[in-house]
Amino acid sequence: MLKTRLTERLRLVHPVICAPMAFAAGGRLAAAVSEAGGLGLIGGGYGDADWIAQQFAAAGKQRVGCGFITWSLAKQPQLLDVVLAFNPRAVILSFGDPEPFAARVKAAGVLLLCQVQTRGDAKRAIDCGADVVVAQGSEAGGHGALRGTLALVPEVADLIVAQSPNTLLCAAGGIGDGRGLAAALMLGADGVLVGSRLWASREANVSPAMHKAALGASGDDTVRSQVMDIARKLDWPPMYTARVLQNDFIRRWHGRESELLAVADEEAAKYRRAWSEGDPERSNTFVGEVVGLIQEIEPASVIIRRMVREAHELLRRGQSYLAQSTAAN
Amino acid sequence: MLKTRLTERLRLVHPVICAPMAFAAGGRLAAAVSEAGGLGLIGGGYGDADWIAQQFAAAGKQRVGCGFITWSLAKQPQLLDVVLAFNPRAVILSFGDPEPFAARVKAAGVLLLCQVQTRGDAKRAIDCGADVVVAQGSEAGGHGALRGTLALVPEVADLIVAQSPNTLLCAAGGIGDGRGLAAALMLGADGVLVGSRLWASREANVSPAMHKAALGASGDDTVRSQVMDIARKLDWPPMYTARVLQNDFIRRWHGRESELLAVADEEAAKYRRAWSEGDPERSNTFVGEVVGLIQEIEPASVIIRRMVREAHELLRRGQSYLAQSTAAN
Repeated sequence: MLKTRLTERLRLVHPVICAPMAFAAGGRLAAAVSEAGGLGLIGGGYGDADWIAQQFAAAGKQRVGCGFITWSLAKQPQLLDVVLAFNPRAVILSFGDPEPFAARVKAAGVLLLCQVQTRGDAKRAIDCGADVVVAQGSEAGGHGALRGTLALVPEVADLIVAQSPNTLLCAAGGIGDGRGLAAALMLGADGVLVGSRLWASREANVSPAMHKAALGASGDDTVRSQVMDIARKLDWPPMYTARVLQNDFIRRWHGRESELLAVADEEAAKYRRAWSEGDPERSNTFVGEVVGLIQEIEPASVIIRRMVREAHELLRRGQSYLAQSTAAN
Repeated sequence: MLKTRLTERLRLVHPVICAPMAFAAGGRLAAAVSEAGGLGLIGGGYGDADWIAQQFAAAGKQRVGCGFITWSLAKQPQLLDVVLAFNPRAVILSFGDPEPFAARVKAAGVLLLCQVQTRGDAKRAIDCGADVVVAQGSEAGGHGALRGTLALVPEVADLIVAQSPNTLLCAAGGIGDGRGLAAALMLGADGVLVGSRLWASREANVSPAMHKAALGASGDDTVRSQVMDIARKLDWPPMYTARVLQNDFIRRWHGRESELLAVADEEAAKYRRAWSEGDPERSNTFVGEVVGLIQEIEPASVIIRRMVREAHELLRRGQSYLAQSTAAN
């Protein structure tokens, strides 16, 4: 077991949060992560009240949180009240300005997490009163931006120390096993938010064909693109792209964005059909660079326990690097 | 002090290698790093035999290595013999296929380092007999590619364990202080290659104006682009871009690559003049995302000793994360 500020303040067994992956992270995965001692989050995504209600029902007695894509929530802000009525363990806002929603979350006594991709957005999250800032690097699967986790996390850690020392910090993007977790702690994080590795779990809402595609892939086989958003007619702000597996769809459209835009009505229908069929070639498999570290689809509890056990062992063995001659030279 | 496979095999005091930064890493910086107990490397860059000879002379009695931009070396392969005649401590090949050069380096009894940006290129480097694979993530300043350090390093570590356990592994990109060094060790690296943080040293060949621009910047203020290579009329393979500070030049040309190409003759002259003047707005300041962690221009020895001391302390304190109740749950 690992003990950090995150486990103590949130009363978790493990400093591991499940990323609120749209579609993939339903109530079943969120509940499995909370039951395993982490913090499970439903991926509220673009915001479908009925789907969200089903997921809270599926989570059963386990307390879980819920995530929103902030710019999408801004189009139907009443969804926040729908979620708050379920007494969520936490609300996490990603991809957009948290300010219009932060006060309502805090007033409800609910833990506020803000996922950010830059130092600038981390400052905004702190100013909005985030309890936990999640610094997400470009390695991440699905939507994100361009800064890498290894340099972003310590820069945000320094900002927190200077401006709001009680704010907690989690690292996201590129964390798929105990090595990533131990590294995140060294960088100054209090815990980690894990997407792809929990996407590759039995409890995730992912098609068997997409799971199969991921098991054969290296991180080299992933790419950041915007074509899936053009094809789905989603208005993502241009700073965000999504990391997915290289496939037929990406080879066809990546770099031809304006052509795709011109035929988006037709392509949107095709894309959504392929997506509903779980087709990994004609839609997209949303995974990050850690796909190259994943060998098996396992229960979430097995994944989390191994990740923590590995990190524990690495931190314990870290002593072996300390040369005995002149400690702290 | 830290003891790793890298310090033991290379007989270094510290597991820190200076990145062979073209222009910035001359003999003075390389010698300072070697003298401080790391491994100093001259940035042989695009390959100018006279300049390289001057740098080996400037390094004096300190043994240092030399780096090449591999695709550029392929245009004047005799430069490798020029460098080998200086009895370098190591040769590092970055950005291109090491195969045509690896055997000559090894036959000369010189340590071969290969810097790679993908798992695929790491495999190639291992197959070519690299003594040290340097896995460089996208956070890095200057040239690089798109994979992030945090996920690339463990994937390459797994490859090395499976195929060539004696090969050493260093992490590069995003490592600017002891946090990055400690994190790299957790990820499975034997040491680190440090660019930007040593670029920001007194011994680096960097203009005061560029140093000043870097001290005020966040990692958010960096961007990967190809426009500086178009403006310099350098034939970089398209997979590589360079991370630089956002500035007037980038704002003018980034995203207008084909227009720049059309006026490249004229722009090349302007760019090279601005570069020779050390102008941070009309040429480029080549730094990585760790620029946000840099507060001061210091001697290389001070930078390296603090980095190692910080990492030592973090590794020692890593024990505090281990909850006493159920060790290795």
